[in-house]
Amino acid sequence: MNILVVDIGGTNVKVWKSEAAEKEKIPSGKELTPAKLVEELQPFLKDWACDRVSLGFPGDVLHNQPKSEPYNLGDGWQAFDFGKAFGKPVRVMNDACMQALGSYEGGKMLYVGLGTSMGTTFINEKQIVPLALGHLKFVRGETFEHYLSRKGLEMHGPKRWRRAVYEAADVLKRAFLADYVVLGGGNAKKLKELPEGCRLGSNFNAYIGGVRMWDDAEVKSHPELAVYPEGPRVVEA
Amino acid sequence: MNILVVDIGGTNVKVWKSEAAEKEKIPSGKELTPAKLVEELQPFLKDWACDRVSLGFPGDVLHNQPKSEPYNLGDGWQAFDFGKAFGKPVRVMNDACMQALGSYEGGKMLYVGLGTSMGTTFINEKQIVPLALGHLKFVRGETFEHYLSRKGLEMHGPKRWRRAVYEAADVLKRAFLADYVVLGGGNAKKLKELPEGCRLGSNFNAYIGGVRMWDDAEVKSHPELAVYPEGPRVVEA
Repeated sequence: MNILVVDIGGTNVKVWKSEAAEKEKIPSGKELTPAKLVEELQPFLKDWACDRVSLGFPGDVLHNQPKSEPYNLGDGWQAFDFGKAFGKPVRVMNDACMQALGSYEGGKMLYVGLGTSMGTTFINEKQIVPLALGHLKFVRGETFEHYLSRKGLEMHGPKRWRRAVYEAADVLKRAFLADYVVLGGGNAKKLKELPEGCRLGSNFNAYIGGVRMWDDAEVKSHPELAVYPEGPRVVEA
Repeated sequence: MNILVVDIGGTNVKVWKSEAAEKEKIPSGKELTPAKLVEELQPFLKDWACDRVSLGFPGDVLHNQPKSEPYNLGDGWQAFDFGKAFGKPVRVMNDACMQALGSYEGGKMLYVGLGTSMGTTFINEKQIVPLALGHLKFVRGETFEHYLSRKGLEMHGPKRWRRAVYEAADVLKRAFLADYVVLGGGNAKKLKELPEGCRLGSNFNAYIGGVRMWDDAEVKSHPELAVYPEGPRVVEA
């Protein structure tokens, strides 16, 4: 099965073809509407028998559809018919969830995405639980988001930011009785040696997540409820 | 199927027979060992064809067995063979999880147990996620546990305690993108009118949870992974 995996960010859109697994980037931003995205993706669909499209969307997703308009992109996402526009089956998932899914290696995993903001997702025995932990309090009356976001990194500097990330990972790991915490997102590369119980995510995990979204394609209609394979392997059915 | 549901608390043990659904109490405390519990339960097993036993245990449970010794009961729980002692299939679940399971009415539910301490459990599309959110920070640098536990109630008085419960429910509901929060446990009866999105749990939900633990008995071996019926109905297969 050939899958086009599309991770929609605020600055750029990352695109992988499941046979190549080399990502390419197209520009994103306030002007990017879903119709424009589909148009920009046409070159990736030429000369290649693409069967499925996986979209990582920077916002809440409900029943395979964006739940609201993203604040850092153009308009029209909430009502857009992706299946019709692409002419093939499309699955849409929150971008942090897609990365989390690609990072999953079994058991109870808490995923913390370190990007412009702080994204959080829990996978419990193969079931995805989208979370929004950023606004819970962390230290000195300030939120996790305050310390771990890009603004927090700029405000406190990399050394204090790293220490905050490690401490937050520890606190949240215990609150979720998690087996491990995956630290992913664009700023994860700024981390150094990780404490025990923490693993490093990577952007490539978004691709793996996009492929895994279809693991259940033969049996289930909701990827969130599917049973995913143990370990970070790429499935090409 | 006749099920004996046993909710083991620090002060007393609540016992329900699935045909009667009237609870009885037996004393608990520092002297209560698992062997003593089995002995105390013998009168409930006489003159009644009990098929299954459900135990709500006040501590972490792993693979149907207490994971550590409870601090407010006697010793020997971690290594005890409940199946052998009862002479029939036994399932053990954390007590807050059992109450949560009995309170579940579909969708995404966060359960907050208001007792001696603060217990938390999330059920996501029918799958139970045990949590330990009590030690996360809430307000003024203090934890949720500090405000919502029995000590918090005594320290701050019922009015401030109620306000803290409602505010905590709201904060946690948003962090978990939950459809509703169930406030259960012994102190839930001290709450007044509930804010939107909150529901009141009851001790009887522990009984319903104990019965639901066997809903999957024909098909699965881990109750945590089972598919539970929508709504708080009692199943007697």
